Order: sequence, then structure tokens, then C-alpha cells
Amino acid sequence: MPTISKKGQDMPQSPIRKLVPYAEKAYQEGKTVYHLNIGQPDIKTPEIALDAVKVHSLDILAYTRSEGSDGYRTKIANYYHGQNIEVNKDNIIVTTGGSEALLFAFGSIMDVDDEVIIPEPFYANYNGFSTASGVNIVPVISKIEDNFALPPIEEFEQLITPKTKAILICNPGNPTGYLYSKEEIQKLAALVIKHDLFLIADEVYREFIYDGYEHYSIMQEDSIKDHAIMIDSVSKRYSMCGARIGCLVSRNKEIISTALKFAQARLSPPTLAQIASEAALQTPQSYFDNVIEEYVDRRNTLIRELEKIDGVQVAKPKGAFYCIAELPIEDADDFAQWLLEHFDIDGETVMVAPAAGFYSTKGVGKNQIRIAYVLKKESLIKAVHILSEALKVYKKS
Amino acid sequence: MPTISKKGQDMPQSPIRKLVPYAEKAYQEGKTVYHLNIGQPDIKTPEIALDAVKVHSLDILAYTRSEGSDGYRTKIANYYHGQNIEVNKDNIIVTTGGSEALLFAFGSIMDVDDEVIIPEPFYANYNGFSTASGVNIVPVISKIEDNFALPPIEEFEQLITPKTKAILICNPGNPTGYLYSKEEIQKLAALVIKHDLFLIADEVYREFIYDGYEHYSIMQEDSIKDHAIMIDSVSKRYSMCGARIGCLVSRNKEIISTALKFAQARLSPPTLAQIASEAALQTPQSYFDNVIEEYVDRRNTLIRELEKIDGVQVAKPKGAFYCIAELPIEDADDFAQWLLEHFDIDGETVMVAPAAGFYSTKGVGKNQIRIAYVLKKESLIKAVHILSEALKVYKKS
Repeated sequence: MPTISKKGQDMPQSPIRKLVPYAEKAYQEGKTVYHLNIGQPDIKTPEIALDAVKVHSLDILAYTRSEGSDGYRTKIANYYHGQNIEVNKDNIIVTTGGSEALLFAFGSIMDVDDEVIIPEPFYANYNGFSTASGVNIVPVISKIEDNFALPPIEEFEQLITPKTKAILICNPGNPTGYLYSKEEIQKLAALVIKHDLFLIADEVYREFIYDGYEHYSIMQEDSIKDHAIMIDSVSKRYSMCGARIGCLVSRNKEIISTALKFAQARLSPPTLAQIASEAALQTPQSYFDNVIEEYVDRRNTLIRELEKIDGVQVAKPKGAFYCIAELPIEDADDFAQWLLEHFDIDGETVMVAPAAGFYSTKGVGKNQIRIAYVLKKESLIKAVHILSEALKVYKKS
Repeated sequence: MPTISKKGQDMPQSPIRKLVPYAEKAYQEGKTVYHLNIGQPDIKTPEIALDAVKVHSLDILAYTRSEGSDGYRTKIANYYHGQNIEVNKDNIIVTTGGSEALLFAFGSIMDVDDEVIIPEPFYANYNGFSTASGVNIVPVISKIEDNFALPPIEEFEQLITPKTKAILICNPGNPTGYLYSKEEIQKLAALVIKHDLFLIADEVYREFIYDGYEHYSIMQEDSIKDHAIMIDSVSKRYSMCGARIGCLVSRNKEIISTALKFAQARLSPPTLAQIASEAALQTPQSYFDNVIEEYVDRRNTLIRELEKIDGVQVAKPKGAFYCIAELPIEDADDFAQWLLEHFDIDGETVMVAPAAGFYSTKGVGKNQIRIAYVLKKESLIKAVHILSEALKVYKKS
């Protein structure tokens, strides 16, 4: 039998995937599982987006331009204008989700064995994209005690080698919920200028900012207009993860013309989803206000309930809808599996994402879990209660 | 300014892209351009597919499973059963177009600098996928005099090195329209078994087979069940190129579990397009009968008209909707540009795809063009007439 590639062997599995069979077993046993592990929001997609595809008048479902339709890109540029980001349609390539934008960015700036520095914990699929692209992630550890703020810039600088091509941040962060300040972005900007690197920012959670803070995009930092590559997506903004529409944004013309070649090879982003995404841009502000209010309420509830548990440390998120909690246990992988297999209260249990999968450094974050607060408040209260009771039993077992 | 990657620089542009500015200039001058260059069919998408998204009842446009929904994959397996291909849903990963299926296949079986042997001329985007994946295409020239039949199997064998991981065919072929016979497939099967290679077949044009011939899939060849990887797509079958739904099919479990890891990294194929694609599977046979009748008529018209031109040689296609024509000129790139810039009959001109871009060997195919017969018969007649008159003028210029 012919052998699969080393790359294919090395492709990581999602930190959650290992738990899926245990979750399925729990279902089969008739248990209710509260999913604190997933990033699929329960928030409704704006009706304007869902309705747009219901009234389409296509008789041929044809390709669009590889970079996305002119009309849609023009409207995206206008949306960014409202976010204090000044770009035009020629700075934008529409992609199949933020995922593809990341793949195009990696392909456009890195060759095999090149390096990208990423503060960890980070979105686990960055591992997959780097393996698929044959490049190496060099992690900088950010700490729960600091709420996962940007590590000292010297820690980035000492990791820079001739192979370093970029620094990648997620702002606000999945899985940390941390929102980088303008000052932190400017420190990174100075560093990428000094060492002639790219700065990639995954800003897909831009709208999910709490407590009156403001998002500062790398695209607002004029000093790095040739260095900055922004990754974006409609998935979380409009709760339309299944659309698979994102974009790559840069003022660096060479980046756009190079990413366009990757885009042309795959022909076109999905047409129906572009129709929905274009319509979604007309979503009224009241939708976001309601969503933010809901998430703030959920976050506050979640943090309050978690902090009641002895020995649990939580980083308070300022954005996105995730938080990292450190538990008084040794191995969250084992605990997460045990929860699904052996613990329930009145037939109800909890699924969490062990955080080790969000770190690249081996052994770090083993006692941490990521919680997505994409469940209703009442469910969050119940889920944390189950977690709390489970910890009492687990520690004795 | 930081530099882009060598990979990014090497990414090829579409053979047609260079002509786009000249086509746009022709439009601006008010000319009508007959597009013999493109693969976007003018055939209507089945209404059942377009209607399915109009009546969707989603209130959250959520991710599906990374491998595609169970329901859709089960129905795809059933469709294959009707094509004498026996697979089940666990042999199928739904992808974002055939493009992504090829990327997953390349990633799953090849590392950097590995080699894939492909008969040329071949679908130009194979160049893009190989550059993006860091692997090398080793071409075997197939000839217009042989209608682009499979080159002697010895020619494949002598190109096999320790780096060779796969042979890739497109059947029926874009850009040749050639349909491989069962005997040819079996020769390839024997070769991949002998040298323990994978055989990848891009079978997206499976339904477009003419003159009573039958398609023989690599998936029907039991001897290579662990070697065979089929690439498929709804794009051409249902004239829904903009859906961006394809699939990777293999009975090799390791291939599926590896490709699934690539699929998980990008989360999910587009949800709305899966709804349309699932509905498309109910398209009645009469739709295909009409489409085939239309294409046969167009092909016959095209070939008949082309053969009237002095010095033009045409390979008669048995499938797909492309053909390669050899013209009595030296450089089809120059001719194609000249057509758009300097030639018209009553304000009408023609855009063709120079075939050199479909060859990997430098200098081969320079006097050939690819014609897509995706225009109505009357337009094809006019377009070939323009081509014929243009050749008379061009040769003198």
C-alpha cells in the first residue's frame, strides 16, 4: 500500500476531536451534554442575510471573480470605513472563510521551514495551516496571570531568526478573549518594521468587544501599511459560520497580487454565500447591540460562577466569546474525558476543550480548559455547577 | 518592505489571465467577444437545486461536519452506486470544489519536492496546486495526432523515481476531451501497483461522455482500491460552478483519515451550497439527456467548422466540453492577443485560450489553442468563422 505523506501524518487533530467519541457515547446513554467546547454560536443569523438567498434570481449558479465580486468587495471596504479602517476594494480578496485567508497569507509570505511567531495559547487550527504550508510556529507564552496580555516585546525579538517571516496575532483572541491595546499593537508594529517582517492579525472577533473598550486594528497603524495582513470572516460577526466567507486585506499590492494567484487556482469563493454575506452588511446596529449585551451577560455569569469554585483561576475576557480557566487538576485531557464518561448530575454533563491543544509548547496549559460562552445564561449556570461538583469528585478519584 | 515567498512568486497565472486586459479593452471599444476560452457553461442549473436554497428553514447558518453532512454523503454514495462505483459515506469527504479535493489529496500523499506524473496537456490549475503544495509535476506528453490518448505506459514508467508518489489523470480530460478506455485505466492500475503509487483521477466531467462510450472510473478497478483517489465536483455536472462543492473519494481508510485532518483545519464546506448540491442529486435523467444532446450538437458543429479551415488540426473529443486545435501559426499567445486587439468582423471577435499554458514542458503546444464549446451553436459557427478569417489576415501580418 502506498504511504501517506509526512505532512499528512503530522497534521494535528482538533483538541476536541479526541473527545467526540466519548460525547457520542454520552448521548447514547441518554445524557444531556452542555457544550462549553465549541465556537458555533447559538445567536441567530441576521434575517436579512438568510432571506437574501431565498429571493435569488440566478438561473446559473456561476463562478464569481476569484477575488470576490466587485460589488461585495466595494461594500466590505465601506464597512471597514465605518470601523476606521481605510481600504478600497483592491485591498481585499474574498476567501472561503478566514481559514482560506490564512492559507493564502501563509503561502504568499512563507516557504518551507520558514517561521511565524505566535503568542500562545492560540487558535488550534493555526497548527493545521502551518503544517499544511510546511512552515513552523515559534510560540511565545502569554500567561493567565496577565490575562494573556502581549508578552514582553523582547521575548518576541529574541526568537527572530533569518527564517522568521511574520508575527501572527488573533485580536481579540480565541481562546483567550484578550483584546490587544493600541500600545501593544504599536510595539508589534515597531518590531516588524525593525526586522522587516509581516504582521498578520486575525480580527474575526472585531465586533465582540466589551466594557467600553475599543478595537485597534493593525490596519489603522499607517507605519506598517506594507507589513500588515488582516484576516477577517463573516462567520462570528453575523453568526454565519456555515457561509464560509472571509477575506484577506492588505495595502501591500504585492501581497494582494500574490494571494490573488492562490485565489485564481481555486477559481472562486462560494457564490450563494457571497449573496448572503453582502446582504449581511446591512444588518442594523441594534442586532450587534443585542448580541453584545447577551455576550456580556453570559461572560459575567460565567466568570462569576467559575470564580466561586475553589482553586479555579479565570482570565477575564474583554472580547470574543471564549475564556481560559485553570483548574485544580493535573491533566485537563483526562478530566474532560472523565466528565463525559463517568460524571453526570441527573443525567447532565459537560464537554470542555482541554487547553493544551491551544499551546505549541509541550506540557504548558495542561491544567487549563477553554470555555466558549455560546450557551444561554441558564445553561452556563448549570454547566458550571456540574463542573464544580465534578471537580470535587474527580480530585478524590 | 518584507519580501513575498518564492512559492508566491512561482505561483502560475491562468493561461487566460494575461489576455483579460485585452478582452476588457475590446469591450471598451464596443466589440462583441465570443468566449471560446472559458469553462463556465451557459447551461442552466437544475431548478431543483436553485429552489432548495430558496425554501431553506435555517435560522443559524451553522457549520456542517468537516467531512460534509452525513445525509449528503450518504446520497452521494447512492449516486455513485448508480454509476457502478461502490462506495459508502465513509469513503467520501465533501470539499470546497474539486480544487480543495485536489489540495487535500496532494497534501495527504506528497511532501515537499515529491513528484506527480501527469499526461499533458493538463488542467492548468494543477500547476497552481502543485506550486502551493511544494511538489513537482513531471509531464508525459500526449499527442494531438493520437487524439491525446494515454501515452505508452513505458513513458510513464521511465519517469518514476523514489520521489514519485502518484499519477494524476483527468478523465474525460480538460483540455483534451479525451476519454480513457478501460484498458488504459487498467494499464495505469498495473503500473501504480507495481511501483506502489497512488492513482488520482479527476472525474468531474464524468457525465459528459458522447457517441455511446462509457466512462470507466478508477474506482471500478478493485485491484487499486488502496491506490485510487477520485476527485469530483458538482460544478460542471449541474452547471453550478459557483456552489464550490466537490468531494474526495477513496477506499483507502488512511487517505480518508488524513484528508479529514486537512478538512478539520478549515472547519466545514459551505452549508448553503451543500443544500443546493444535495437537492441537485434529484435532477431527472432528462436534464442530462438534454445537456448531452446539446453538447454533442455543439461539438459536432465546432469540429465540422474547424475542419473546414486550411491547416487546422483538431482532436475529436469524446467527453467534457473542450477541444484542442492546432493552428497554422507559430505562437497562439500572440495570436490570441492579436485577435482581441486588432481583429474583428463587424465589431465581433473571439477570445481563445492559448494551449501552451496547459503544458508543463516548455515550448510544447505553442501553436495550439483550447476551445470550450460552452456557447450556443449559432455563436460557435460565428466564432469559428471569425477565427478562420482572422487566420488569413494574421498569417500575412
